[in-house]
Amino acid sequence: MSTPVLDKTRLFRNALGSFATGVTIVTARSAEGADVGVTANSFNSVSLDPPMVLWSIGKNSSSLAAFMEAERFAVHILAAEQEHLSGRFAKSGTDKFAGLEIVRGHGDVPLLQNCAARFQCRVAFRHEAGDHYILVGEVDEFDHDDHAPLAFHSGRYGLFVRNEPPAAAEGAAPPLLAELLVRAEDALLRRVEGAMGESGLSLAEYEVLRSLVDLPLTLEDLEDWAGPAQEIPTVVLVEDLAERGLLDAPEGGAVSLTDAGRDALARGTAEIAAIEGTELGGLTPHEAQLLRRFLSRIAASAED
Amino acid sequence: MSTPVLDKTRLFRNALGSFATGVTIVTARSAEGADVGVTANSFNSVSLDPPMVLWSIGKNSSSLAAFMEAERFAVHILAAEQEHLSGRFAKSGTDKFAGLEIVRGHGDVPLLQNCAARFQCRVAFRHEAGDHYILVGEVDEFDHDDHAPLAFHSGRYGLFVRNEPPAAAEGAAPPLLAELLVRAEDALLRRVEGAMGESGLSLAEYEVLRSLVDLPLTLEDLEDWAGPAQEIPTVVLVEDLAERGLLDAPEGGAVSLTDAGRDALARGTAEIAAIEGTELGGLTPHEAQLLRRFLSRIAASAED
Repeated sequence: MSTPVLDKTRLFRNALGSFATGVTIVTARSAEGADVGVTANSFNSVSLDPPMVLWSIGKNSSSLAAFMEAERFAVHILAAEQEHLSGRFAKSGTDKFAGLEIVRGHGDVPLLQNCAARFQCRVAFRHEAGDHYILVGEVDEFDHDDHAPLAFHSGRYGLFVRNEPPAAAEGAAPPLLAELLVRAEDALLRRVEGAMGESGLSLAEYEVLRSLVDLPLTLEDLEDWAGPAQEIPTVVLVEDLAERGLLDAPEGGAVSLTDAGRDALARGTAEIAAIEGTELGGLTPHEAQLLRRFLSRIAASAED
Repeated sequence: MSTPVLDKTRLFRNALGSFATGVTIVTARSAEGADVGVTANSFNSVSLDPPMVLWSIGKNSSSLAAFMEAERFAVHILAAEQEHLSGRFAKSGTDKFAGLEIVRGHGDVPLLQNCAARFQCRVAFRHEAGDHYILVGEVDEFDHDDHAPLAFHSGRYGLFVRNEPPAAAEGAAPPLLAELLVRAEDALLRRVEGAMGESGLSLAEYEVLRSLVDLPLTLEDLEDWAGPAQEIPTVVLVEDLAERGLLDAPEGGAVSLTDAGRDALARGTAEIAAIEGTELGGLTPHEAQLLRRFLSRIAASAED
């Protein structure tokens, strides 16, 4: 698995990519008073006392001159939501700051908002190293918010998900995914059931309405159908919903939603979404997003 | 949200922690021929041509002297499975290499195995910076494997999970989690159903056996019970399983598994686990691990 280095720049870049990093934008104000900024993932801490950080800038960067002259720079550690800023500051030739709300830091350095952390620095050293310069800054002011960080690995943006201590039942076989799915669904439905109210629908009624949006079925078709939360026969539910004006259920014809039925369904969906939006099982919004993504992939895999 | 820096080392450390990093172990051979190694997340790339990397070592590190004298060092980017090595090399006073299978690189520097990437370096520069030295190495050999990386953020180990392009249905409301759970479960059960064979159980029979391990029920109790994959009444399944010698179902008493029933259940569990172990929906083993973790947390949340 060894590779002698000749001019294998691409292979070297790939190997470097296996080190996960955050993403930063470093800004400065040029001697002519222009705002400059570049995306860099070569940031890192150096010293705690005095507080110092470093990053590297390529000799062919269009912002090199400004950063070689400026006495100050500011490093912004990007939050997960700021991927678009990373892309914007990685390209040259555009006004990178156009439309961004900035504030002025020490030395009028432009500071971006809503980052995970910001470090305002005085340049302590500039060290030449190959095709880059290492810029070491002494930090004289910083701030920090608890945003989930933007992460970068092998040329792709992503998220950091922390490890958890191993579960109590160490050594035991892990529970089957099929069982976990059933248990999670059960827990979620119990939550939803307990909280639905304003829409005037039970969860079982909601499921009946929801299923009829996609496929118009006759009462006969519905005899065999049952949603996960359902204990009352579907035909009974349908008759009740029709009496309340939420469904049209003509003898022998397809059952369909009325306008009132569509409204009730929309309110029910909003209610369920609101419950799912609470910190279900302590999942952060990013973790919940990942969970949805994984489930979608498994659901889609049945179509392979 | 601004914090002037005085001696707020802890706050500074927290702010630095918001930059996600990989984790490396840097090794060298001291002038006296001893192997040394330290854990560092201050690694980063510097130059592509010539290939150069850097990291920082604290002035109070017990390995400082060795690294200040050594002409060579090797950086190992740790894989997700190597968290234990990170902990081992972060402590001093023990034989960090005890029991590890190492190979010798250039200059007899000890090289660890099964890392995400390794860089063998000649020291190019050592720059003092506050309470650390920055060590810049020119890379003369490296290798790289496609291991998932160990990641580090805010003092916690974790995983990197890459972002995916937004789904086709842009702008539409995301599907409800409750629906995704049902769809994923459905897809998984369909897979499992199609693949179960050696255990001699249908999925519905498996579910009946599985449920009877935890709670011994009478035939009467079982009349109302049904597993997710079930279309045949439970009492009919139980009678059939009893005839095949997998269940004891005494008149009026609790239904329980026979030894043969336990064996069949174990084979069925192994079969399902094997199906779940395939790349379900293209999930990597780490993604599947995260999915289980998230589902467990939601399942447990019903007990709040």
